[in-house]
Amino acid sequence: MTINAAKQDFPVSKARRYLEPGPVVLVSSRCNGESNIMTLGWHTILEFSPSLVGCMISAGNHSHQMIRQSGECVINVPTTELTDKVVGIGNISGAQIDKFSEFELTAESARLVSASLIKECHASFECRLYEDALVAANNFFIFEIIAAHVAPRPEYPTTLHYTGDGIFMVAGEMINRRELFSKEML
Amino acid sequence: MTINAAKQDFPVSKARRYLEPGPVVLVSSRCNGESNIMTLGWHTILEFSPSLVGCMISAGNHSHQMIRQSGECVINVPTTELTDKVVGIGNISGAQIDKFSEFELTAESARLVSASLIKECHASFECRLYEDALVAANNFFIFEIIAAHVAPRPEYPTTLHYTGDGIFMVAGEMINRRELFSKEML
Repeated sequence: MTINAAKQDFPVSKARRYLEPGPVVLVSSRCNGESNIMTLGWHTILEFSPSLVGCMISAGNHSHQMIRQSGECVINVPTTELTDKVVGIGNISGAQIDKFSEFELTAESARLVSASLIKECHASFECRLYEDALVAANNFFIFEIIAAHVAPRPEYPTTLHYTGDGIFMVAGEMINRRELFSKEML
Repeated sequence: MTINAAKQDFPVSKARRYLEPGPVVLVSSRCNGESNIMTLGWHTILEFSPSLVGCMISAGNHSHQMIRQSGECVINVPTTELTDKVVGIGNISGAQIDKFSEFELTAESARLVSASLIKECHASFECRLYEDALVAANNFFIFEIIAAHVAPRPEYPTTLHYTGDGIFMVAGEMINRRELFSKEML
């Protein structure tokens, strides 16, 4: 497996670069000394500054209570090289196994939260729970991204976008239409 | 421009096939006899049944009040063939122009809502406002998809995924890992 270049600090207000395209992400959490990872496709950017992201994390997930109780998580963006690990993580509960160990992923210390960054992922966003108004009724968490870490290479990572039925779309090719945008929209 | 095959009815509970990968969508609305279209990248699937999707629609958009007042909209999924129209629609306000006319898009009658389907888009989802608890404070609308229309061809449409800065990722290539999924996850 190709090792990503070591991640570097990245502006939190620009997290949309990696999350707005809608990739499957790996959410790592830590609570009472236990670590876990879940696969998540149900998320959306909500604001640039503060840097907000909304995540629908079903109460059936082992991670749900860990994130709710700790109020923290890390959203990690895997590339296609991690496809089989992404699928594996999404198909077994952290109540049964230690996913970092089982899937041979490297836990790196975050700067501001207790959950770990996943070293093998292209980008990692440290999150703190910002608004829980829809957690109880809708399992919808609004997080503030409080630190961001992105690998400088590859410049155009290929990401996984889940369609259901075990099938992912792959995004990677880029189209630049910058010249068609008005200045205030950039 | 290639004309998509005419859309056919599609199960609302499977809308995630087209929305979960995170494409830029065109949201059409209608209120007090006026129609509008906006470009949106901030959305997420929230539930299969009822079929729920959450959309962050900034109050600065002309469409915001139209959707809030009518309680309805249509979420249309464009393919890369519509790239320049998608950009154009996102860079001018519907307060100034009629976007269907300006961008030469065809309005088709929806079945259950007053907003129009966009004929040139690959898929169209008729939506009714389901939960407005986060609209006032966060501009976050939760819609129920109450009717779905999808073109049967192309089988693998290429979609646009916005990264900011005028740049889109393109998704189209598919990876099938169905054999790695447990039955209850499919």
